[in-house]
Amino acid sequence: MSTTPQSYLFTQGCRYPDLEAKSKDELKTLLGGKGYGLYLMHSELGIRCPVALNLPTFHAHGLEDGRLPAALVEEVRKGLAEMEKATGKRFGDTANPLLVSARSGAKVSMPGMMDTVLNIGLNDAIVEALATGEQERFWLDSYRRLLQMYGDVVAQISEDGQDPFEHALAAFKKEVGAATDLDLGPAELRELISRYKAIFARHDSEFPQDPIEQVLRGAEAVFRSWNNERAIFTRRQEGIPDDLGTAVNIQEMVFGNKTPRSATGVFFTRDKSTGVKHADHLEGTVLFQAQGEDVVAGIRNSLPLEALRDHEDPAFHAIYEELRETGDMLERRLKNMQDTEFTIEERDGVPLLFWLQIRDGKRSAQAESVIAVEMHREGIVTREEALLQLNPDRIEELLFPRIEEADRKAATRITRGSAASPGAAAGKVVFTQDEALDLAAKGEPVILVTVMTSQEDVKGMKASRAILTTTGTKVSHAAIMATAWGIPAVVGASEIAIDPDAGLFRVGDFEVRRGDTITVDGSTGEVFLGAVPTTVPRDLPEAARTVLAWADEMKKLQVRANAEAAETRKAYDHGARGVGLFRTEHMFLGDRLPYIQAVLFGDDPDEAARALEAIYAFSKEDFRHSLRVMDGHGVTIRLLDAPLHEFFPADSDLEREENPMLGHRSVRMAITNPEIPRTQIRAILDAAADLLAEGLDPRPEIELPLVITPAEVHELKRVAAEVAMQVHEDRGVWVPYAFGIMVETPAAALQGRAMVEALRARVPGFPEEAHPRHGFASFGTNDLTQTTLAISRDDADKFLPLYVERRFFPRHPFVSLDPVVERLVRLFVEEARAVDPDFDIFICGEHGGDVYTIGRLHEIGLTGISMSPGKVYRSILAAAQAQVRHPR
Amino acid sequence: MSTTPQSYLFTQGCRYPDLEAKSKDELKTLLGGKGYGLYLMHSELGIRCPVALNLPTFHAHGLEDGRLPAALVEEVRKGLAEMEKATGKRFGDTANPLLVSARSGAKVSMPGMMDTVLNIGLNDAIVEALATGEQERFWLDSYRRLLQMYGDVVAQISEDGQDPFEHALAAFKKEVGAATDLDLGPAELRELISRYKAIFARHDSEFPQDPIEQVLRGAEAVFRSWNNERAIFTRRQEGIPDDLGTAVNIQEMVFGNKTPRSATGVFFTRDKSTGVKHADHLEGTVLFQAQGEDVVAGIRNSLPLEALRDHEDPAFHAIYEELRETGDMLERRLKNMQDTEFTIEERDGVPLLFWLQIRDGKRSAQAESVIAVEMHREGIVTREEALLQLNPDRIEELLFPRIEEADRKAATRITRGSAASPGAAAGKVVFTQDEALDLAAKGEPVILVTVMTSQEDVKGMKASRAILTTTGTKVSHAAIMATAWGIPAVVGASEIAIDPDAGLFRVGDFEVRRGDTITVDGSTGEVFLGAVPTTVPRDLPEAARTVLAWADEMKKLQVRANAEAAETRKAYDHGARGVGLFRTEHMFLGDRLPYIQAVLFGDDPDEAARALEAIYAFSKEDFRHSLRVMDGHGVTIRLLDAPLHEFFPADSDLEREENPMLGHRSVRMAITNPEIPRTQIRAILDAAADLLAEGLDPRPEIELPLVITPAEVHELKRVAAEVAMQVHEDRGVWVPYAFGIMVETPAAALQGRAMVEALRARVPGFPEEAHPRHGFASFGTNDLTQTTLAISRDDADKFLPLYVERRFFPRHPFVSLDPVVERLVRLFVEEARAVDPDFDIFICGEHGGDVYTIGRLHEIGLTGISMSPGKVYRSILAAAQAQVRHPR
Repeated sequence: MSTTPQSYLFTQGCRYPDLEAKSKDELKTLLGGKGYGLYLMHSELGIRCPVALNLPTFHAHGLEDGRLPAALVEEVRKGLAEMEKATGKRFGDTANPLLVSARSGAKVSMPGMMDTVLNIGLNDAIVEALATGEQERFWLDSYRRLLQMYGDVVAQISEDGQDPFEHALAAFKKEVGAATDLDLGPAELRELISRYKAIFARHDSEFPQDPIEQVLRGAEAVFRSWNNERAIFTRRQEGIPDDLGTAVNIQEMVFGNKTPRSATGVFFTRDKSTGVKHADHLEGTVLFQAQGEDVVAGIRNSLPLEALRDHEDPAFHAIYEELRETGDMLERRLKNMQDTEFTIEERDGVPLLFWLQIRDGKRSAQAESVIAVEMHREGIVTREEALLQLNPDRIEELLFPRIEEADRKAATRITRGSAASPGAAAGKVVFTQDEALDLAAKGEPVILVTVMTSQEDVKGMKASRAILTTTGTKVSHAAIMATAWGIPAVVGASEIAIDPDAGLFRVGDFEVRRGDTITVDGSTGEVFLGAVPTTVPRDLPEAARTVLAWADEMKKLQVRANAEAAETRKAYDHGARGVGLFRTEHMFLGDRLPYIQAVLFGDDPDEAARALEAIYAFSKEDFRHSLRVMDGHGVTIRLLDAPLHEFFPADSDLEREENPMLGHRSVRMAITNPEIPRTQIRAILDAAADLLAEGLDPRPEIELPLVITPAEVHELKRVAAEVAMQVHEDRGVWVPYAFGIMVETPAAALQGRAMVEALRARVPGFPEEAHPRHGFASFGTNDLTQTTLAISRDDADKFLPLYVERRFFPRHPFVSLDPVVERLVRLFVEEARAVDPDFDIFICGEHGGDVYTIGRLHEIGLTGISMSPGKVYRSILAAAQAQVRHPR
Repeated sequence: MSTTPQSYLFTQGCRYPDLEAKSKDELKTLLGGKGYGLYLMHSELGIRCPVALNLPTFHAHGLEDGRLPAALVEEVRKGLAEMEKATGKRFGDTANPLLVSARSGAKVSMPGMMDTVLNIGLNDAIVEALATGEQERFWLDSYRRLLQMYGDVVAQISEDGQDPFEHALAAFKKEVGAATDLDLGPAELRELISRYKAIFARHDSEFPQDPIEQVLRGAEAVFRSWNNERAIFTRRQEGIPDDLGTAVNIQEMVFGNKTPRSATGVFFTRDKSTGVKHADHLEGTVLFQAQGEDVVAGIRNSLPLEALRDHEDPAFHAIYEELRETGDMLERRLKNMQDTEFTIEERDGVPLLFWLQIRDGKRSAQAESVIAVEMHREGIVTREEALLQLNPDRIEELLFPRIEEADRKAATRITRGSAASPGAAAGKVVFTQDEALDLAAKGEPVILVTVMTSQEDVKGMKASRAILTTTGTKVSHAAIMATAWGIPAVVGASEIAIDPDAGLFRVGDFEVRRGDTITVDGSTGEVFLGAVPTTVPRDLPEAARTVLAWADEMKKLQVRANAEAAETRKAYDHGARGVGLFRTEHMFLGDRLPYIQAVLFGDDPDEAARALEAIYAFSKEDFRHSLRVMDGHGVTIRLLDAPLHEFFPADSDLEREENPMLGHRSVRMAITNPEIPRTQIRAILDAAADLLAEGLDPRPEIELPLVITPAEVHELKRVAAEVAMQVHEDRGVWVPYAFGIMVETPAAALQGRAMVEALRARVPGFPEEAHPRHGFASFGTNDLTQTTLAISRDDADKFLPLYVERRFFPRHPFVSLDPVVERLVRLFVEEARAVDPDFDIFICGEHGGDVYTIGRLHEIGLTGISMSPGKVYRSILAAAQAQVRHPR
């Protein structure tokens, strides 16, 4: 039996020992984000905040046929009675009624996606009693709003899919010639209220006069809204788990719309775009005589917060200072920039500041590192705490083309979708792959606009500057591929309607034809008409570089990069120390294809020998370059690894393999054609010998792909030892080298002990110096995932997106390491380290650049990670964060 | 440090506590087969046997540059001194010299493949002293033989690849006009001896006069012969591990050629062809005044053993009785039929019987069960012991076409290769796949004769009655495929030279042209000219049926069969109780292909609906048949499992998958196209409902192929529950069914707990009766091996044979379960049984019919095994043997 309480009443100075025992993450999971903020404000921060009753998130799964279970009803009733005591107000009291809101609040914020009911507690009797004098309109309008929200959200009354209350309001305004809601006087509001009641009656429904009944029904509706269509859609979009659930917060209402000296507003402790904390002003806005929803509705323009400072009534000056001071206090206590909502309610002639919500503020990629560095400089956070503020996934955005704020404001935004792959680009609209390829071939920048993409579109996608889809989510094909290639993408821009026959798309009032230019911002999800200027930063901003330097010091995982010769310099410049995967197969393609063909398929031994010499020569040059750039750091060179058919002569009648991924390739080809690894190893050792002669410290590491049995290791170690002997004979030097395996099959992963023993074994008959100086292993998690799940990525397009969308996997298995594959990783690491506690184990699959995966691998105890050069920054940050969270 | 003694001296009544502690298998591993027999005879059986010194098998790996290490030399010297004491003879004594043989003896018998040296201990002085009178020729001939064997085997003297001793003998016989060796008198033998010594001198070699030196060099030579070419080739052929090594047995010589009243012979305790123990005669032969090698050389015809019984000297009558009585005693003590060698040496005028070798006798497949049943009837062995005498692999041979002994004797054998796939067949010789297909299409029986086969030849192989290759071994492609298909095959018939241009092959003096008829006996490895009659047994012989009935009672593993409708009756008749794998994909091919095409690729919903109805109808009929035949036993029906492209319309431009094995198939297609599993499940449940209405007990089991996540189980269980509801609604009956998964991916194997929990979970919202009655899992070890090792069998031909031949795997991984795959099996079983100790787990991959694998799976604790109907007999036997060896 769970001993978790069914609800929490938050009042000033409240204490809950069971909550104090929980971590921040656990608290947010239990109470939701909003509830967590309410708890902090009441229990710890001591700032003025309306009393609230939190019904934790797990109740969202406990409804019985959509209703609160009896035990919870009882609990809510008790909680409401406590609220009455704490506030001195009473539900249903015609003199001093307690009014509340029922607000959703999940662990992860999904603004506007779930339901809220305000002004709960009003009924005919209260309104009758209080709707007089100055406050007449206020009370009538509040009641009108309650009826409307209740009818829509709780009673779920709709007519032909429309909201009849909204419709009645619009019709009535027309009828009486009112331009806005504010033009409706008390008499009109009374009429509107009676029309609203008629709508209830028409649907055999009734608005309950009992305030407690309103609360219970309201809470149920908010819980249910966790599973409304918009919320589910958003969770799909954002990758938010379905089982989190939402909490319900029943909070005493305060009224920013009560009097002209009441107000509502938002306040950020720093600038969320730049990260700067301005000395001369506060970030945020305020709106007098308004409720929060009015700000959203944009009825009047909100004012900068300095309207408080400059207000004619000095009472507001004090509130301005209270905002500033409380903001500073919050930052010091919560160790992060805060995004807050507040209301000023005039009570007994005095404007009083109430804090409604606090939360860690969202910010731009640029602001992240600025805030971290500044807050550390200000002594608010340690370097470790500062580092944890960053989202490593976003650091590379700082180098993507971006739209400056001024240009953004000046541009015509036509719609907004889900920001699926960061960066911004302008280009001409095309609707098909063929159009993309045609136009791109003419040197034109193109943007592919389509309903969704699939494996068949990859050529067209790659030819595009940006991708815009009208469906899909952040885990759809378009998003994943665009992210992998670094192409900006916006997906799920559902307002866009493509008309393929007309060769155009429509969105709102805009019509965009094939060939028209648009600009897509994959960092924000925005789409603009025409070419909005973009700028490409040359280097990371200083604050980001500072944070990276901290991270580099803190991390325990070595960070290498997957780089061939041409990419090694960039990898080094981005902070990689060592190459975790030098793929050699590209060397053999293109113009050089005839060489490997002569070796594999030719019938002229002399030609084959000449081809091997050519292979040796260009291989050695490439290897030497990378070893030189990474002087003093390991360079893992993987022996030739490609499906055989990639080398077939064009006119060949050789039969393609049935399943090339599981065919005659990699170390298997090295076993059947040992002249190829022999040549590659000779090139590696000779390249290193050249650098040794220059006084450098080259550290070549020879790696076997697709190993499945220790016997393969023995065979190739013998080849390496033979080559080492030859090099020694020819050049008089023993070149030190390491020798390792790629772990990319379940078979290899399941034989950790045997593999490490094979790597450590002596090759009989060879001197000590001809042997590798040490062994290593590196997880090729892409192939390992493919073989473990029996999924060929090339062929997965018809079912994998569906599997991911339906959450058959906890995360996309080709983005973040799947738990099943992680189990194999653990099995290997445990066995390998049992044989040799210092055995070097890396990862070089693309999972090595995934932030979630890096955290897991840090905990598992890998030696290092390797990823494409473009992901080195994020990986350094992620590795440092992993160490801060789980020191090892 | 090993405490195993370096050698063992076997004398009458000897005791070795360390050997007494070992099992029979361990003793044979240590002492070799021959050494084990010597140990038994001396220590336990108390029958007259020459003293012997055994140098155990591990020494074969301990030679230092081909020489015995010093410690062993010392040990041998001591042992030889003990032999002198035990025999009363002395090495080098000119009056009573001790002569010995040095014989190889590995754990597994490889007759004639390793070396032997006889008559060790003779030298000039001894021969000079003893070669007089009646015995003159005996001693000279013995010395001549020693010189020749020593020169060949120990000194390894050869001239142009020829044996110069053999050559000198032949030349000398011609010179003096001698027809056979026996025609050489003492004078000639003295001349020959001097010519032999000249050969030694010519090669800067010398025959050592010191008997001890002869023994040491002889022992070394025998140890070295473990790695001679013939022995290695044989091990490859027979799948004998390289690391076993041979023992050396140094045994006192006894001489069947000493006098006319001396003899040598062989004696079998039962008829090795029929298994019968005849009342009126003994099995075996005897040759007077001869040594064992003379029998082999065939100088004179050997006589039946009754020659002893009917001998004029009653002393031999006693020996005949001694043979019979000792044979009976050996069978009772050793609990098996014995194959023995003996020598009768006349000493002091008395013929004395010496037993040289005893071993469990090899026997025909027919004889195996006859002997087992008879020995049990005679009270010699328990049923369990009798059962262990059988080789389960051979029982199906009893149903293959075979050549009767009389026909075999009358036929012209042209060569012999390795018996690779049992059964006999006659047919016309073809040399290529195309010829095979052409001739077979005309209804002619063909036999494919080729150097080796590969994946490209499978059509031609399947069209052939038998396969004959000139290279390869029992683990080559030809052998494995032929065994799988039940086609007789002889491989490695290296005497055959194919001349493709001339369209013929030559072997010995024979020339066989394309289209000529030959007969291949894959049970013996023999190849005959012309059509030798073959007979096909209708049923197993009675003894085999008796043994099978015992086995069926003893086994703990359930034995099912992989059978579609047409094969279910045969499976039941062979003893399978239940279908472990009913593949449904064949139902959809051929004439029925358009139906599934209409569902998958059509654009007419009505046509698709009609197609689904047709699919339903033929599926139901097939399912009902199998459920009826297996009434009361489980029938596991696997939902559609085939690569998508197998269903592509012929004129389709659909793109074939890159790696179909890892593509959109199996349960993935069931998820994306749920109408197909829905139709299949409805057919299954309706078929069962029909039988329930007849009062039968149908037990359908629905199985999902290629599962990788528990979510797939949840999805398809819901479909099944929905169908069960519909069936209940339509027919008023709740059909009981089981629901399970095929474990054929590492992902499934690594999630035992989650999979079993998913199988046990309730489908929300469904009544208890709509749920499966129980869950189960079945290992698809073929795909599991492919994914674990990342080997596509279709594409493995270029490297897998090499890997198998070089012993990169302990056994062929697609024949016997690889240890790495076994690890996954164990992981799954452990987790699954932790959730539910009674959870049913089967295997239905072809490994399920492999005798080695069955033993492993019995120990792991599987519920049952399933294999093709043709392997049910062997599997029942293997399962029972596993239980006898490891009761559970």
